[in-house]
Amino acid sequence: MRADTEKILVLHGPNLNFLGKREPDIYGATTLEDINAMLQERAEGLGLELTVIQTNHEGVMIDAIQQAQGQYACIIINPAAFTHYSIAVRDALAAVSVPAIEVHLSNIYRREEFRHHSVVSPIAVGQIAGFGANSYLLALEAAAGLLGADKQ
Amino acid sequence: MRADTEKILVLHGPNLNFLGKREPDIYGATTLEDINAMLQERAEGLGLELTVIQTNHEGVMIDAIQQAQGQYACIIINPAAFTHYSIAVRDALAAVSVPAIEVHLSNIYRREEFRHHSVVSPIAVGQIAGFGANSYLLALEAAAGLLGADKQ
Amino acid sequence: MRADTEKILVLHGPNLNFLGKREPDIYGATTLEDINAMLQERAEGLGLELTVIQTNHEGVMIDAIQQAQGQYACIIINPAAFTHYSIAVRDALAAVSVPAIEVHLSNIYRREEFRHHSVVSPIAVGQIAGFGANSYLLALEAAAGLLGADKQ
Amino acid sequence: MRADTEKILVLHGPNLNFLGKREPDIYGATTLEDINAMLQERAEGLGLELTVIQTNHEGVMIDAIQQAQGQYACIIINPAAFTHYSIAVRDALAAVSVPAIEVHLSNIYRREEFRHHSVVSPIAVGQIAGFGANSYLLALEAAAGLLGADKQ
Amino acid sequence: MRADTEKILVLHGPNLNFLGKREPDIYGATTLEDINAMLQERAEGLGLELTVIQTNHEGVMIDAIQQAQGQYACIIINPAAFTHYSIAVRDALAAVSVPAIEVHLSNIYRREEFRHHSVVSPIAVGQIAGFGANSYLLALEAAAGLLGADKQ
Amino acid sequence: MRADTEKILVLHGPNLNFLGKREPDIYGATTLEDINAMLQERAEGLGLELTVIQTNHEGVMIDAIQQAQGQYACIIINPAAFTHYSIAVRDALAAVSVPAIEVHLSNIYRREEFRHHSVVSPIAVGQIAGFGANSYLLALEAAAGLLGADKQ
Amino acid sequence: MRADTEKILVLHGPNLNFLGKREPDIYGATTLEDINAMLQERAEGLGLELTVIQTNHEGVMIDAIQQAQGQYACIIINPAAFTHYSIAVRDALAAVSVPAIEVHLSNIYRREEFRHHSVVSPIAVGQIAGFGANSYLLALEAAAGLLGADKQ
Amino acid sequence: MRADTEKILVLHGPNLNFLGKREPDIYGATTLEDINAMLQERAEGLGLELTVIQTNHEGVMIDAIQQAQGQYACIIINPAAFTHYSIAVRDALAAVSVPAIEVHLSNIYRREEFRHHSVVSPIAVGQIAGFGANSYLLALEAAAGLLGADKQ
Amino acid sequence: MRADTEKILVLHGPNLNFLGKREPDIYGATTLEDINAMLQERAEGLGLELTVIQTNHEGVMIDAIQQAQGQYACIIINPAAFTHYSIAVRDALAAVSVPAIEVHLSNIYRREEFRHHSVVSPIAVGQIAGFGANSYLLALEAAAGLLGADKQ
Amino acid sequence: MRADTEKILVLHGPNLNFLGKREPDIYGATTLEDINAMLQERAEGLGLELTVIQTNHEGVMIDAIQQAQGQYACIIINPAAFTHYSIAVRDALAAVSVPAIEVHLSNIYRREEFRHHSVVSPIAVGQIAGFGANSYLLALEAAAGLLGADKQ
Amino acid sequence: MRADTEKILVLHGPNLNFLGKREPDIYGATTLEDINAMLQERAEGLGLELTVIQTNHEGVMIDAIQQAQGQYACIIINPAAFTHYSIAVRDALAAVSVPAIEVHLSNIYRREEFRHHSVVSPIAVGQIAGFGANSYLLALEAAAGLLGADKQ
Amino acid sequence: MRADTEKILVLHGPNLNFLGKREPDIYGATTLEDINAMLQERAEGLGLELTVIQTNHEGVMIDAIQQAQGQYACIIINPAAFTHYSIAVRDALAAVSVPAIEVHLSNIYRREEFRHHSVVSPIAVGQIAGFGANSYLLALEAAAGLLGADKQ
Repeated sequence: MRADTEKILVLHGPNLNFLGKREPDIYGATTLEDINAMLQERAEGLGLELTVIQTNHEGVMIDAIQQAQGQYACIIINPAAFTHYSIAVRDALAAVSVPAIEVHLSNIYRREEFRHHSVVSPIAVGQIAGFGANSYLLALEAAAGLLGADKQ
Repeated sequence: MRADTEKILVLHGPNLNFLGKREPDIYGATTLEDINAMLQERAEGLGLELTVIQTNHEGVMIDAIQQAQGQYACIIINPAAFTHYSIAVRDALAAVSVPAIEVHLSNIYRREEFRHHSVVSPIAVGQIAGFGANSYLLALEAAAGLLGADKQ
Repeated sequence: MRADTEKILVLHGPNLNFLGKREPDIYGATTLEDINAMLQERAEGLGLELTVIQTNHEGVMIDAIQQAQGQYACIIINPAAFTHYSIAVRDALAAVSVPAIEVHLSNIYRREEFRHHSVVSPIAVGQIAGFGANSYLLALEAAAGLLGADKQ
Repeated sequence: MRADTEKILVLHGPNLNFLGKREPDIYGATTLEDINAMLQERAEGLGLELTVIQTNHEGVMIDAIQQAQGQYACIIINPAAFTHYSIAVRDALAAVSVPAIEVHLSNIYRREEFRHHSVVSPIAVGQIAGFGANSYLLALEAAAGLLGADKQ
Repeated sequence: MRADTEKILVLHGPNLNFLGKREPDIYGATTLEDINAMLQERAEGLGLELTVIQTNHEGVMIDAIQQAQGQYACIIINPAAFTHYSIAVRDALAAVSVPAIEVHLSNIYRREEFRHHSVVSPIAVGQIAGFGANSYLLALEAAAGLLGADKQ
Repeated sequence: MRADTEKILVLHGPNLNFLGKREPDIYGATTLEDINAMLQERAEGLGLELTVIQTNHEGVMIDAIQQAQGQYACIIINPAAFTHYSIAVRDALAAVSVPAIEVHLSNIYRREEFRHHSVVSPIAVGQIAGFGANSYLLALEAAAGLLGADKQ
Repeated sequence: MRADTEKILVLHGPNLNFLGKREPDIYGATTLEDINAMLQERAEGLGLELTVIQTNHEGVMIDAIQQAQGQYACIIINPAAFTHYSIAVRDALAAVSVPAIEVHLSNIYRREEFRHHSVVSPIAVGQIAGFGANSYLLALEAAAGLLGADKQ
Repeated sequence: MRADTEKILVLHGPNLNFLGKREPDIYGATTLEDINAMLQERAEGLGLELTVIQTNHEGVMIDAIQQAQGQYACIIINPAAFTHYSIAVRDALAAVSVPAIEVHLSNIYRREEFRHHSVVSPIAVGQIAGFGANSYLLALEAAAGLLGADKQ
Repeated sequence: MRADTEKILVLHGPNLNFLGKREPDIYGATTLEDINAMLQERAEGLGLELTVIQTNHEGVMIDAIQQAQGQYACIIINPAAFTHYSIAVRDALAAVSVPAIEVHLSNIYRREEFRHHSVVSPIAVGQIAGFGANSYLLALEAAAGLLGADKQ
Repeated sequence: MRADTEKILVLHGPNLNFLGKREPDIYGATTLEDINAMLQERAEGLGLELTVIQTNHEGVMIDAIQQAQGQYACIIINPAAFTHYSIAVRDALAAVSVPAIEVHLSNIYRREEFRHHSVVSPIAVGQIAGFGANSYLLALEAAAGLLGADKQ
Repeated sequence: MRADTEKILVLHGPNLNFLGKREPDIYGATTLEDINAMLQERAEGLGLELTVIQTNHEGVMIDAIQQAQGQYACIIINPAAFTHYSIAVRDALAAVSVPAIEVHLSNIYRREEFRHHSVVSPIAVGQIAGFGANSYLLALEAAAGLLGADKQ
Repeated sequence: MRADTEKILVLHGPNLNFLGKREPDIYGATTLEDINAMLQERAEGLGLELTVIQTNHEGVMIDAIQQAQGQYACIIINPAAFTHYSIAVRDALAAVSVPAIEVHLSNIYRREEFRHHSVVSPIAVGQIAGFGANSYLLALEAAAGLLGADKQ
């Protein structure tokens, strides 16, 4: 029985709590609360249970990833700025046996050069980037695909 | 009336016709025909009409992209090897007003260094990579999201 | 009425609490407390109100920057070691609408190669570096100049 | 008698057939047909005979270059995207004894970094870039200069 | 019985059809037809059957490589200019289970810097370069060695 | 009335006064005086008035560019060695509202690596290189094209 | 009297609390608790007193380093992922007058390219890497050697 | 008696004489004359005597720096374009015993990549950049701080 | 019975025979003879038998490494200057089945940039650097740990 | 009469004497003695006389190359590790008038990055790599081809 | 008769007029006047006639080099800071047929990284660096050697 | 009394024994014996005593350098190919207290890119390159200058 495989951990990285408040030309007007509500609604439709965490603290994100071990079937993570330098977040994702899906709201390849490289990508299952809030919903679908949830 | 906005062009790049025949550790055992069948089925569910083209010829891919102008609402493209050097494919995508979604079966950041850079990414709407055949289905969902098709 | 535009947030990055205690050949013998006292005195002369925060925690610095939104007219920030890699601090500064002034005690271009690059500089208004404690006082003058405080 | 030295081959690279239809801020509103018409008119004034080929296919461009051998006195080529990676086009130009003039509509040094490097330049006689459709007319003048046609 | 293992596919890349006509200081005066005749003669001596294809079109080369699957025991390939950028040709060679031998007429390490790197080398069995037409004959011997043909 | 738009400033950079005296294999035997005479003759034909300046002094070149403001309709500049490092010349060209055309006698892409990069190119209208003295005449035609002079 | 010189601070960086639970091919099956027990036993044999801290939080690690000043005779630090980017941890080690010994369980030069560079190494006394849990014990011996403890 | 320590030399580099006339989006509408007037006024308030020189000639700037030896207590220098390549200006500043303060009107880290590097910075006391005309006034304050003038 | 596993080969690279005679600020005043004596004493305590070789000749070092095969249980090697370029020494260490421990007297990361890279590290078990003569003694302990000698 | 042109010098670089004893996954189980025997047999068939030298000493290899002058008609060299850094071996090969053929057992482009570059290649006639022991036999055939021996 | 071949032009670059006045640890206490006196004395001994020029102006140096054509038998040049970026000085030296000897007082390879590259070296006959004032005298000897003056 | 300060060690690196026998376009027709004879003659004139060693073996060169300690007043070294990679030769020169002068026959900056960098230069007193055999004589003069021999 894999009762716990239906729990998904959604991790929002630094400054995503400001979403929809500033720089709408890059991220749109949708707030993080809007995204979380959409995610909860879609998760219910897919028979998944979500836990959502936002943090500006690298250490808190690492702790949360470690605690996912044995508790969650999948991690959906938008590491935001940590994407580009936090090897500690990468190592945490590599240290747990929970598959991770990397999400970005914007198309990071249209932005500054330093945003084109992700230290997290090589340990993620896959990446979804550029679709705004929909990036998260697609990641949820991808997670469901990984878990076979959509086949039940 | 935007009758033609519901047509989607799916472009498979070089060597994808060999899918499922060799190197299953990287791409899995699913064949391109399997993927196309899955795409057609999902497209019907989303009320979308698909045209699917596979080519090993850069020029054929460019011609196909140009002909999408005014005919298709979205291009889903897996440029395969062209991803990494075909500026001509990039320019074709930039020259038409049809939004493009970049798809990869494998997580290209786990593979050789030269596969980490895409010349196509900056002109795509977004990227989906690493979910095997499901990458295409997620791209179809993303296309539906862009077109508002899933809201009707 | 812009009553709140006269409040300035001063942020001291990691290890600045050790100032004046070690490595005086690089930073001088002045302690952070000395600098804060000088800043308070100068602020009074300029009719500005200061809040001063020192932290060794990137997440705490990001939280503080976010909370400056709508509360402070300007941020004077010495990101110290974060200068060179914390894209999360950079993104926090970009996310708020409060102008930031980047300060360094030492001339970072005389030091190790890796200190010559700042990820924060492109989103700051300007930089002041190399004048020891006086770098902060000049930043306060610069802030006053931005706010028009020195013209009243 | 060099009767055949008065024939010029004009080669337009990939996506130039879209000229004037999209991205007018970069290339202007002039279409490729407009340019070809201008070229024909100017060629007549200079006593030159033109053949004009546009292709999105690298192989077709190489074949055309090879067939110029012994047939044309000069090649005017805008390799478009091929400029930056097609060593095969470069080698074709090096393999024939027909002098080539490299043309670009836009000033490629104002565009993306990857457009600043041309693999074709070292084997061309010279380059003309940045004058829009006039770049081609100037190249025709340059060809006439090379052939001594303007001295007759 | 491995009747089909005695068939060898020889692929000549772009501009090799110009061999012996221009730039004899780099490639010598031998034409491609001369080389093919020498190859056929040597193949007969080794009990091998040859198919020879020359193309200036990357897509045609990829198609030919794919069609070698199950039909040929070995591919002898001189990718010419494609050596340096055609990841699509590389991927085609990697996609089929036919071993490939990389051949170059000239010593590419004596030529321009960009000719020192081959994207094909890592997926070839081995390389033979610098012996002019003899490079091909040596490759044929190497193929015979791989197939054990020379031991019968 | 734009009477002054018909005046063109021609700027020759350092060492061009030695033209035709040494290194004829690179620049040919034509002297700078020859070129200036050809330019004057062609300018008359186009109804343009030329001022020609040659200098080995970066500061003199900058002064001349600045004085072109409001006096000349176009600058034709061969920055010679300054092409590769004089950001001050670049900034002068950017500071005035007179369009500049960059000219080189030789094909700089056939020469030393350090001559392949121009700090001036991004602020010029366009470039003409490799046609010897004719590069200047073509630039004059290009200038006439920019000014509409050839249409009168 | 240097009573306090016999106290050693052992700092374990991010994700080391997962040791022995996952990725045993890289780090072995020994847990952090096992290592700490071995360290305490060896410390007693050497007449040293240990304090051991593990943290996933960069700021906590910096605070701990600063508090070592005047309290500890030596720091044994395995910065884990922080090794490669945390200039703040480096600056903390440089700011205190306590000598630091850098430890790694694995041979970081056999792993990913980005693990070959340590921002901490230049301010450490020395490095010990590749001996698994024994790396720590050797560091303890090295610390004893620095303190002269093994001579008493 | 340090009578001469109260004299300050202000050096404006190439093209700064065009300030306020063009490109106001980068440098604002203030002219160099405005800045000089503001500097003179502030200098009087600080009891300092100014000499102001603007030049487009590197050699003139070097001569001026050398003549500052023994005559001026401080140099305030905005090297403009020379910032990025004039090692000769750098060496002049290093050769004299007069401390130099580097000033930039704009935040050079928001501009082109090549403006992010200064060859002058390592020999300056410090840098002030990004505050428009106020950058100079702050530099004057910084100079006063260096000279102790503000304490009298 | 593994009688021969208790023999250790110690290899000192070029110029280490000068130790203690010059550059004491980098290597200290201890001579190589001192180190060898300390090593012999410690080896006896650990029940190990040492052979010690110093050579300035790369070929001699390679020969010695090869002869260790089947004769020694472990190699302790300070490759000195060879560390940074002798791929032949690296290949010798890789060719034998004797584990190697890399030792450096000084902290090579505090020295010239070219000393930060070791071609030997990836094939060594581990590295010990920065503890002066004690680096060797720690390596001996590490060797004992590898051999289980300290458990007897 | 060129009696001495039929003598061939075969040079095996460092660690090749260990061939077939270790790392068979890279080099196979064939020993150097096996290869030498095969070479002697093939040489006889071709009417060539071989001298074979293996050395781990760069200086010995250089001496051997120098002594080939006037004594041997061709050098077949597998420089092994020296391939990648021994400019002295390269210069020796350049200094003598004996043509050299570079041989590698393995496909060096499938191995570590640092093995992809050969300092010897530009002065060799050509390269043969990746065919195991057969690489040497092919080189012998190539040598015979160079000498015209196979035509007798 | 080559009467004029016995005249030597000595060119001192920017800031060399400050020699012996500042930074004696790098350049020593000898002044430029001292060096010129030594040079004159040595020149007399060698039967050579010297002209000595020092300038801080790149344009003046270029003019002087050009005027050496036909007037001087050799140029001894210490380009000082121009060494590292003045392609214009390089081109001037290349444009005249007078051989040039490059001189540096200090060993430029012991100084900052940017001083290790000379744009002048490839067009000079040779270089002499690191011997202080004696570098010039040795250059004079070298010039005499070139001219055969010391053999008369 | 510094009787031994008058002895000079001249070290010729690999392949210099072939001087004058091959590649005269680079090194001239003078043999090493010619150079040694010229050196002996000049040494006598300067009251110096020479020992001359040529070797193709790095280890022999290192041994010779070490034995110079206390025996020679100066080393004149042409490291030839070792110049570019032998850190062991560099370290030997750094380990002894005998000043070294680096000599090259050819102007290494006119040759291949890899010859532009010397690992020896930073520890030499100075460099003399490009004057053929005269480079050595000038080095002898330079040595005499260092020793004060020319003042007696």
